[in-house]
Amino acid sequence: VTPEFELIRRFFTRPARKAVLGVGHDCARLAPPEGMHCAISTDMLVAGRHFAEDADPQSLGWKSLAVNLSDLAAAGADPAYALLAIALPGVDVAWLEGFSTGFFSMAERYGVELVGGDTTRGPLTISVTVIGHVPAGLALCRAGARPGDDAWLSGQTGDAALALEHGAGRVQLSAQDLAACRLRLDRPQPRVELGRRLRGHASSAIDVSDGLAADLGHIAEASGVSFDIAADVLPRSAALRACPDAQLALQCLAAGGDDYELAFTAAPERRTEIDALGRELDLPLTRIGTAVRGRGAVTLRDAAGTPVILARAGFDHFA
Amino acid sequence: VTPEFELIRRFFTRPARKAVLGVGHDCARLAPPEGMHCAISTDMLVAGRHFAEDADPQSLGWKSLAVNLSDLAAAGADPAYALLAIALPGVDVAWLEGFSTGFFSMAERYGVELVGGDTTRGPLTISVTVIGHVPAGLALCRAGARPGDDAWLSGQTGDAALALEHGAGRVQLSAQDLAACRLRLDRPQPRVELGRRLRGHASSAIDVSDGLAADLGHIAEASGVSFDIAADVLPRSAALRACPDAQLALQCLAAGGDDYELAFTAAPERRTEIDALGRELDLPLTRIGTAVRGRGAVTLRDAAGTPVILARAGFDHFA
Repeated sequence: VTPEFELIRRFFTRPARKAVLGVGHDCARLAPPEGMHCAISTDMLVAGRHFAEDADPQSLGWKSLAVNLSDLAAAGADPAYALLAIALPGVDVAWLEGFSTGFFSMAERYGVELVGGDTTRGPLTISVTVIGHVPAGLALCRAGARPGDDAWLSGQTGDAALALEHGAGRVQLSAQDLAACRLRLDRPQPRVELGRRLRGHASSAIDVSDGLAADLGHIAEASGVSFDIAADVLPRSAALRACPDAQLALQCLAAGGDDYELAFTAAPERRTEIDALGRELDLPLTRIGTAVRGRGAVTLRDAAGTPVILARAGFDHFA
Repeated sequence: VTPEFELIRRFFTRPARKAVLGVGHDCARLAPPEGMHCAISTDMLVAGRHFAEDADPQSLGWKSLAVNLSDLAAAGADPAYALLAIALPGVDVAWLEGFSTGFFSMAERYGVELVGGDTTRGPLTISVTVIGHVPAGLALCRAGARPGDDAWLSGQTGDAALALEHGAGRVQLSAQDLAACRLRLDRPQPRVELGRRLRGHASSAIDVSDGLAADLGHIAEASGVSFDIAADVLPRSAALRACPDAQLALQCLAAGGDDYELAFTAAPERRTEIDALGRELDLPLTRIGTAVRGRGAVTLRDAAGTPVILARAGFDHFA
């Protein structure tokens, strides 16, 4: 083991608290709480594709865990553990310090323990696996929406995409709007508490990572319904409201991706309690449309009820 | 979702059997058996570093799961689930067919269910996470070896490294020896059944992936002992016995890496039962030395008891 390798390891080794056995063993060992199922998810982020090679390491550390916690949120699971496999082109202490600071600040916020991982040399690639717990029978999933259910959205979508459009020179944001949009892109807030509280109340849920329309499409397909979404009702940030290009703004809102909000469905009888939950969590929860009979379609309609056509339906990880 | 993306997904989607919820959801959901702990491990394999860009995809699929199952074996865990995150430079149907065939043939051999993953475009990188079950209190780990314990090794080490030495032109193997060594390099056999059977019998265990001396060093450090290993006793394959360069042969044996055998310790009272277990599993189990009082040292000794110095102690993932 070289000093270099030892150095990297130092940044990612913290004592186990909940785990029976944590970092530095062939396997981590976890004792699942009684009556709980494990929810588990993995993501891979590649430099030059999911983030710029020179991306701020602290934001990257934060985001690489946050996007995974967002998957746990969509399952209604309590985050518990993470594993981090990372390929690094070389040893850059400042980078490692930044990345681990960002990663652990997100981890500590949600009581997530890093229990294992792997470090190797290679093109910068980050693969995080998260494990959460959810009471058996109470997990949220994509299947379960019924015709007549309301479609809901937490927070607002589109800002992360708008920051990228600014970066590509397709729109010019004010310094203030740009800062707000970059924060949404770089430091997403996984809706963990909302996911937990929706257990037993939402009929389906998903996290919005590929674009609202695409992700609602996943619910629609899994549930065997379609969605009618009211474009005018979609909540818009100040930056999106100020955007002079209405088509671009709608594209960001409905098909931008990288939002990490939750889209979910619930029976209309749940409206009062969901409104109350939004107030309690200080998180806007907006009824954006309705599940209808159908087979996986998502139709965005303007105020007159006319379908709106999007140039691009969603973010494609392989395009 | 592009047809390309759909195509890739097709290769990795199989129906869930044991899992509550499998591939194609935000999270997989798993119900751990009662009284069992979860053992979990993750590895990242990078093209050009852990394998050649043009490596046979079927062997690569096999090996990328096998090396992870080897970690479960070292914990004495029953393999149950896997997640696969993969970055691909492009869509190559023949490659995907080969990789998934190799991956699932290893998975089926050990009843492992692929329950989730992620696919993205990027430099070829494979990150597998495996989950197994082990009865609470019976897992194997690196800490637990005591002075006086025997050190054991399953199978034999060195062949995978010898294949690489042949590839680098430092030794010339016969066609038959090369084929045998390549098989060990490309199609490692994780010692899953041995790991399970050592529960409650071995005082410590590790899988030999970085080289025998280095991995025994990990046990030594974690257990607070040292090891005296008898170089002459280390089991040698026909290829290694035929190797004309004795120094190179010893280097491969003791510091080659990529072996995926188990090294473990047990009290001398266990000798008879461990010998019997080896016969039952048709897997040579060799007593290669002794744990002694010390602080993490591994000393290889020749027949006269003189310490043997290795040029390189083990494989370093970051060198």
